[in-house]
Amino acid sequence: MSKYSISTMVEWSDKAFERYGQSTIATRSKFLLSIIESLTDKKEIIIEVAVQETHLPAVRLQNEFGRTVNQIKLFATSILNGTYLEATIDPGDPHRQPFPKPDIRRLLIPIGPVVVFGASNFPLAFSTIGGDAVSALAAGCTVIYKSHPAHPQTSKLVFEAISEALKKNGLPLDTFIHLELSNEESQSLIMHPLVEAIGFTGSYTAGKLIYDLVQKRDKPIPVFAEMGSVNPIMVLVQKIREDMEELASSYASSLCLGVGQFCTNPGLIFIPETEKETFVALLREKLSAVTPQPMLTSQIAKDYHRKLSEFGKLDFGNGISEVSIDALPAIKVVDSDTWINTPLYHQEVFGPFGMVVTYNSTDDLADITKHLEGQLTITLWATEEELVQHKGIIHSLLRKCGRLLFKGVPTGVEVGHAMQHGGPFPATTDSRSTSVGTFAIKRFLKPIAFQDCPEALLPEELKDDNPLKVVRMVDGEMNL
Amino acid sequence: MSKYSISTMVEWSDKAFERYGQSTIATRSKFLLSIIESLTDKKEIIIEVAVQETHLPAVRLQNEFGRTVNQIKLFATSILNGTYLEATIDPGDPHRQPFPKPDIRRLLIPIGPVVVFGASNFPLAFSTIGGDAVSALAAGCTVIYKSHPAHPQTSKLVFEAISEALKKNGLPLDTFIHLELSNEESQSLIMHPLVEAIGFTGSYTAGKLIYDLVQKRDKPIPVFAEMGSVNPIMVLVQKIREDMEELASSYASSLCLGVGQFCTNPGLIFIPETEKETFVALLREKLSAVTPQPMLTSQIAKDYHRKLSEFGKLDFGNGISEVSIDALPAIKVVDSDTWINTPLYHQEVFGPFGMVVTYNSTDDLADITKHLEGQLTITLWATEEELVQHKGIIHSLLRKCGRLLFKGVPTGVEVGHAMQHGGPFPATTDSRSTSVGTFAIKRFLKPIAFQDCPEALLPEELKDDNPLKVVRMVDGEMNL
Repeated sequence: MSKYSISTMVEWSDKAFERYGQSTIATRSKFLLSIIESLTDKKEIIIEVAVQETHLPAVRLQNEFGRTVNQIKLFATSILNGTYLEATIDPGDPHRQPFPKPDIRRLLIPIGPVVVFGASNFPLAFSTIGGDAVSALAAGCTVIYKSHPAHPQTSKLVFEAISEALKKNGLPLDTFIHLELSNEESQSLIMHPLVEAIGFTGSYTAGKLIYDLVQKRDKPIPVFAEMGSVNPIMVLVQKIREDMEELASSYASSLCLGVGQFCTNPGLIFIPETEKETFVALLREKLSAVTPQPMLTSQIAKDYHRKLSEFGKLDFGNGISEVSIDALPAIKVVDSDTWINTPLYHQEVFGPFGMVVTYNSTDDLADITKHLEGQLTITLWATEEELVQHKGIIHSLLRKCGRLLFKGVPTGVEVGHAMQHGGPFPATTDSRSTSVGTFAIKRFLKPIAFQDCPEALLPEELKDDNPLKVVRMVDGEMNL
Repeated sequence: MSKYSISTMVEWSDKAFERYGQSTIATRSKFLLSIIESLTDKKEIIIEVAVQETHLPAVRLQNEFGRTVNQIKLFATSILNGTYLEATIDPGDPHRQPFPKPDIRRLLIPIGPVVVFGASNFPLAFSTIGGDAVSALAAGCTVIYKSHPAHPQTSKLVFEAISEALKKNGLPLDTFIHLELSNEESQSLIMHPLVEAIGFTGSYTAGKLIYDLVQKRDKPIPVFAEMGSVNPIMVLVQKIREDMEELASSYASSLCLGVGQFCTNPGLIFIPETEKETFVALLREKLSAVTPQPMLTSQIAKDYHRKLSEFGKLDFGNGISEVSIDALPAIKVVDSDTWINTPLYHQEVFGPFGMVVTYNSTDDLADITKHLEGQLTITLWATEEELVQHKGIIHSLLRKCGRLLFKGVPTGVEVGHAMQHGGPFPATTDSRSTSVGTFAIKRFLKPIAFQDCPEALLPEELKDDNPLKVVRMVDGEMNL
């Protein structure tokens, strides 16, 4: 911790918000693009340090660097058209009877200082200038970032790039405050009355702890905690018979990607009982080819091995040294009744572990869906004929997830406009939000209505002649 | 309570949601318009019963009936263009390197069964088919409505109209469940795991109780509680000198409207110290002309008189009988230092009571603003010259309210697209939401992304050829 108190630093952030919160879209866009420049200057050293700290392969980190940069670019460019501000104008009418109609203009404005907790598994794309931080900055909020202890030096380097960009653009340095904090200090940070929202990506345990603590604040604030899930895949019988080999192969690859350390890792798969033997045999074959890979930290590896031991006899993957930082994939096969009645089998295991659950008939899937917890993603592998025949399943699945896939695997989250990376609790604490894609910005905005405001005082986005040419709704009609 | 358990009835609502949640926009629009028909058939009896139950004048209830009908009509027509669904398409690209780009389509869908608590002060517009219920129904959610004990018969009549409309449109009757509940029963209702959101309008005490209780659920859900506020008016010196008479008159009328029982009642006004004597004298004169009016219930009148007694010596309005259901206006005048240091003077008094606070210089307003709690509205009475000169005040005020007025009074909330009826805590529990206007519908929706979904299975709003002609964002561009 620095020599200043948490309270002092939140006040600095709040003070910076007085200026940064009033910056124009163009200013913020330019600032975000400057961050890319500064990051790119440091790319080599950032990757080098991140490899040391996270044990992730350089090529994966290079990809993640690219993804991080693309994400910043997407926000920097997409805010420019101002669509995200939901500018809405209901013109007044002084002659309306029995009372004149006032002129009302609505706009989203930044909510205030935001606290962001980064994730261990994405040292770049979900950390210091990851999705939460960049969407808050794009919104016009100041950020107080809690550095992740699994990659402190990487975080510092990224922070330097952000500071350089702030300086270069003449913006308050306290727009982004970077802190290394103990758990106790983190707690006093989220309880500070001037903090207006929290972004978190990480484990259920840590996310729920933060959520519960925030509920004890005098003033409630939104908590956007993305806490991962088991991302079930449901395979229908016709489909698995048609593509058995390819599906087993896709599943095995997705399960082992990044040593299973993705929040969209498909830790649960439902297959027809009749196909069990063939599918599991194929899966074992694919997984046998996987070589041991180091996990992010030795603690995470220890947790993975401890968790596996709770599952008793595995159907693949016994006998891995429990002291190694390396992990190997594992699977457990049970029938759907056993799965429904065993709470342990519903839990996320952080690592390359898959629960394979067999079901008897497609009709069982309705009941299985009822027993699913909230998920970031659900994947439905079915032929189009099967989908049409079992259309009802889709509606039920939509109640349980944020993204429904009909092809491919849930890992590899696209960063775009249409992406929804969220889902019902316990996947997140707010199923109405996304932490990936441009809609992530909406989490850090709040609406304001200006009533009978003189033209000169209106924000540019709401002025009569629309100088910034933002998309607006005027008198109920969308107006480009 | 009925003979069925709370749990059974929530299950009915959930069951109805399986069908109603999949209804088309056109179906829901037609259903809402049918409610208007049924309500209109019962208009006379509804007004008659409401007058008896609420002591509100018939003319006021007739106006409120009109407002309620207009509100339903607004939702019924505005959902038709589908803009509120935020349909977003990121087309796929099978040739993208190094990986093919999936096709991702995002849409808002209804969140599930919603519990609604109506308000005593708007027996029609904020009750059984008020803003919360109608926005939830428009969204495609089923509603479990807790009838307000201050107007149970009015509520039943409105419920009958809703049931008739459901029948007429062949929709599940349990789409809208109407319950008279004890506090204990209400508690078990909001704790039920199948309930997905809560809408509430009423007092801070009741709203905060519900909010805190919901935090104890295993699964967190959003609570949209609108709990009122004191709706400060700030008057700048040049403006008050120019329009003294008119401002005093406007303030007195707004304060006494509906016997001060509006959530936007301006219970706090800041005036320059130099103008105190003239302004307060005018105010006394206007308020002296007000005749005693019955409040909504004798308990509310009792609370009003008790609360006034806590304020000690008043500057107007002493000597009202404490046992009457009637109320008269009252004011208390203090300087800004006293106001800042006396927590009692910041509290909402439900009734026609105004805190008049004097300040020395316009520069004091920054400090005063810091001490304001979150408000539904703030009104700034200033000349345009003053506004330009003290522009900084506007930014500070935006952090404290949902609607900023530059003319007129906060009472008389317009129902439109641009209205924001919300504000930072303690005005509401979620400053990012509104409970009036078409944006209220967004509270009861959640986003879903469909990844690589076959065209035949996509919701109409996301199909390639856009059969419903909804406004969509395609590849980052708004598309009409």
